Amino acid sequence: MELALLYSGGKDSSLAALLLDSFYDVRLVTAHFGITDDWEHAERAAETLGFPFETVELDRDVAESAAAEMYDDGYPRNGIQAVHEHALEAVAAWDVDAIADGTRRDDRVPTISRAQAQSLEDRHDVDYLAPLSGFGRHAVDRVVETALDVQTGPSEEIPRADYEGELRVLLTEEFGSAAVGDVFPPHTQTYVRGRQ
Amino acid sequence: MELALLYSGGKDSSLAALLLDSFYDVRLVTAHFGITDDWEHAERAAETLGFPFETVELDRDVAESAAAEMYDDGYPRNGIQAVHEHALEAVAAWDVDAIADGTRRDDRVPTISRAQAQSLEDRHDVDYLAPLSGFGRHAVDRVVETALDVQTGPSEEIPRADYEGELRVLLTEEFGSAAVGDVFPPHTQTYVRGRQ
Repeated sequence: MELALLYSGGKDSSLAALLLDSFYDVRLVTAHFGITDDWEHAERAAETLGFPFETVELDRDVAESAAAEMYDDGYPRNGIQAVHEHALEAVAAWDVDAIADGTRRDDRVPTISRAQAQSLEDRHDVDYLAPLSGFGRHAVDRVVETALDVQTGPSEEIPRADYEGELRVLLTEEFGSAAVGDVFPPHTQTYVRGRQ
Repeated sequence: MELALLYSGGKDSSLAALLLDSFYDVRLVTAHFGITDDWEHAERAAETLGFPFETVELDRDVAESAAAEMYDDGYPRNGIQAVHEHALEAVAAWDVDAIADGTRRDDRVPTISRAQAQSLEDRHDVDYLAPLSGFGRHAVDRVVETALDVQTGPSEEIPRADYEGELRVLLTEEFGSAAVGDVFPPHTQTYVRGRQ
């Protein structure tokens, strides 16, 4: 069965790939807006893990309205959620049996409710899987420690291909360089260098 | 890492075992009240899948109060939920790194909320995993088809070791033979005969 997993090169979506690998033909898919080439970081991580890799280009309008919303809100939650929902809709339209992401039980954003999952599945005739949604943060960290070689550090220093990178560029372009610091509190990110 | 998975011999808990197998030393644990020997069905299924097997005997009082509640309610939901929570507390007290069950995204019962999961983890210093909670019914069925050899049929004819079997006996003993039909609507169950 063919499965498209939304992939950032970070530990969560990498672990999701390992969990699904025994049951699906997993391809890792990085969604981007054509703003930066950060998706290449995800491609490199996918290669070291041994999974096929593709990109999907999303509507630039969605990124711009997400950046504006994040700037108005002063925090990233609603903008990130909107982009993730848009990315899921995009891969759900592909000719695959299932789509998946790396959302965890304790994630505040993005989160896909049971009703949203059912709606995606019904409208696109596809299964939606969130293989880490039954794992808390501590469990994910322990399993990642045994299975993956991970680089961890401040968000702005870690090579990655999640939505944040391109949204940071858009925020700077539209609202000036201080906007990024206003929207994103300092936080750490992870990047997967390979398997353990 | 040592993990104890609550196990019935059915397709959901069997698939949960396969999903966790790459990352944990999984042992399958059937909870029972000492009322029947139905746990032997789970033991046989565990053997065919190649996992170590143990039982945990729960408090008979919990089964009796669950049976009385189910009889009063006229449906099984609250009684089954109470028994499952009791079983999770029992294995959470074991010396393991993680505990798990086979609950799915679409299950109405048993369900463990995010708050209940966090409480279990904090009180017992253990990770609680529900590896199928990000899988809908259709996805589970498709993966099971490729991975497991499953026998399906009416609940009363399928060998299994979930809580229902012993609660059926208790209901008959306490409230007469019609009570079982009043509480449990006809439904199908599954029993795992091996891997595909």
